[in-house]
Amino acid sequence: MYIGLALPSSELNLISAIRRQAKGAGTTRSRALIAGIGDDSAVLRLPAGHEALLTTDLSIEGVHFRRDWHPAASVGHRCLARGLSDIAAMGGEPVAAFLSLGTPADLRQAWLNKFLDGLLTLANRFRVPLAGGDLAESPRGIAADIVVMGSVPSGKALLRSGARPGDSIYVTGELGRPAAVLHALTEGQKVSSKSAANRPHFFPEPRLAAGRTLRGVASAAIDLSDGLSTDLTHICAESRVGAVIQEHSLPRGVHSYQSSSLHFALHGGEDYELLFTAPPRAKVPARIGKLRVTRIGQVISDRSHRIFLADSHGQRKLLTPGGWEHFRRG
Amino acid sequence: MYIGLALPSSELNLISAIRRQAKGAGTTRSRALIAGIGDDSAVLRLPAGHEALLTTDLSIEGVHFRRDWHPAASVGHRCLARGLSDIAAMGGEPVAAFLSLGTPADLRQAWLNKFLDGLLTLANRFRVPLAGGDLAESPRGIAADIVVMGSVPSGKALLRSGARPGDSIYVTGELGRPAAVLHALTEGQKVSSKSAANRPHFFPEPRLAAGRTLRGVASAAIDLSDGLSTDLTHICAESRVGAVIQEHSLPRGVHSYQSSSLHFALHGGEDYELLFTAPPRAKVPARIGKLRVTRIGQVISDRSHRIFLADSHGQRKLLTPGGWEHFRRG
Repeated sequence: MYIGLALPSSELNLISAIRRQAKGAGTTRSRALIAGIGDDSAVLRLPAGHEALLTTDLSIEGVHFRRDWHPAASVGHRCLARGLSDIAAMGGEPVAAFLSLGTPADLRQAWLNKFLDGLLTLANRFRVPLAGGDLAESPRGIAADIVVMGSVPSGKALLRSGARPGDSIYVTGELGRPAAVLHALTEGQKVSSKSAANRPHFFPEPRLAAGRTLRGVASAAIDLSDGLSTDLTHICAESRVGAVIQEHSLPRGVHSYQSSSLHFALHGGEDYELLFTAPPRAKVPARIGKLRVTRIGQVISDRSHRIFLADSHGQRKLLTPGGWEHFRRG
Repeated sequence: MYIGLALPSSELNLISAIRRQAKGAGTTRSRALIAGIGDDSAVLRLPAGHEALLTTDLSIEGVHFRRDWHPAASVGHRCLARGLSDIAAMGGEPVAAFLSLGTPADLRQAWLNKFLDGLLTLANRFRVPLAGGDLAESPRGIAADIVVMGSVPSGKALLRSGARPGDSIYVTGELGRPAAVLHALTEGQKVSSKSAANRPHFFPEPRLAAGRTLRGVASAAIDLSDGLSTDLTHICAESRVGAVIQEHSLPRGVHSYQSSSLHFALHGGEDYELLFTAPPRAKVPARIGKLRVTRIGQVISDRSHRIFLADSHGQRKLLTPGGWEHFRRG
């Protein structure tokens, strides 16, 4: 290692490329963004009467994605989807995204372009400008931290701490498919990123419209990133309650790994659906747009913040958080 | 790699530890912070009539720091200082910090505690709450992305794009010492992180008070992170101007590497002083608190956004951006 004295042309060029690509995608046009890429920090204007939301999600090569499993566009999409999903779970609107990206010096420009394509296509669809970030060399693998700033009307953010005994527990969409696809990848199966059935893994959909709809309806919310059992534990811990989940009511969808689908639905992770609670009299819609909303259980009073799984006979067993902290080396 | 099924206890424990440590440091008490660590995103309130600032800075082990060179507290301090320095360069106030941290599974808890100590001690000094972030395993080395949200009165942010021909160019403090220390480290010299002379490298001071003072005074500003020649090029490019620097006026301080001090002052990087321009009639103070402000040159009209270095005889030579993109492997 030495103090390099060379013109930092590669970094300057990369910033220019991102600027051009972001402009091309229309993602730098935003009323909220006063100054973006190219200054020490972005300058942003929030709507009057709104509070700011801020979330960061770190994606590490070999932990959150693998270049031999995930096409570059999927990696870019997944990075941003994680941040947008957090904003959705707060009932917020995304205002701007920021990317801190560490890349090996020998990373091909084509990979980087496709990564940015995937990220910016999703950003553009939700009209989120890429407003800044940081670039650095990361000699031993890609590290991408996505930051999303959002906004929510003051006092209306959906927190994890508002669940009360007697509230019902709901999820959007279906659970378990992304983990089933990941499992297939780990088993060396051929998995197409282009098949619609595999899209929930490679191109998950942040539930922003659902989150907005739940403002004033849900008592607590979280996005399902670490798996139902772990994420429901977060709600229970923050709200100081317990929960009972009805096994038969879990929306597991239909996929080719039926035998383990209950496991994936309970513990799989990366569903990026919303898990929320609502008081008995709340008007919870059965669908939000085309997205199904399913009642899966009930909040109970429990000092130890435990979760129970009830079978069709009403038998309860303790459900321990078995979500995974991303896949890792065995 | 496999889909881990274990309780994600290490991540939960680390979050709890950070929460406790952040609370202990008093950094979670803030009027701006409505909800912090423990929800899907932080919820923040900006002062009325203010715009939001947002900056991200990625620090990669082996690129921005080395564990055998930098004590853990220095690494934590330096991570946050980079973000605070960006907010200073915008003339802003820091509102909250966020840390995305990837760590190898075998990283000692003691290192992590000292890293957090360094980060939170600085945060506490500027009353910036650590309001959230993300934690992940990073098998091949530490990656830390610091995000700082700030605020600035609407329309008052100091941008890079406001320099005009005829403006004077100024810097705060002294230049070159951090690069001289880094050079000593690369040469294998014994360098104490505890010596006051080495503090600018190990514990750089973000110039937040200076940045605030320069609101309404400076026409453009940037923080000196990549070296004077590179950062002045950024101002010139964004403002579409050129610049002349007077070699003899550079505040180089006194240090033990005199022979290369001009080089370090021009190209060294990581000074974290403010570089700014101001119109001829602006009232630029000679000192801000104890911090010296030095006029080092003038903005000129130049279509190619070139920078010239003038010696004491008035001879000009072209100064090419020679800052470095962090130290790297040779």
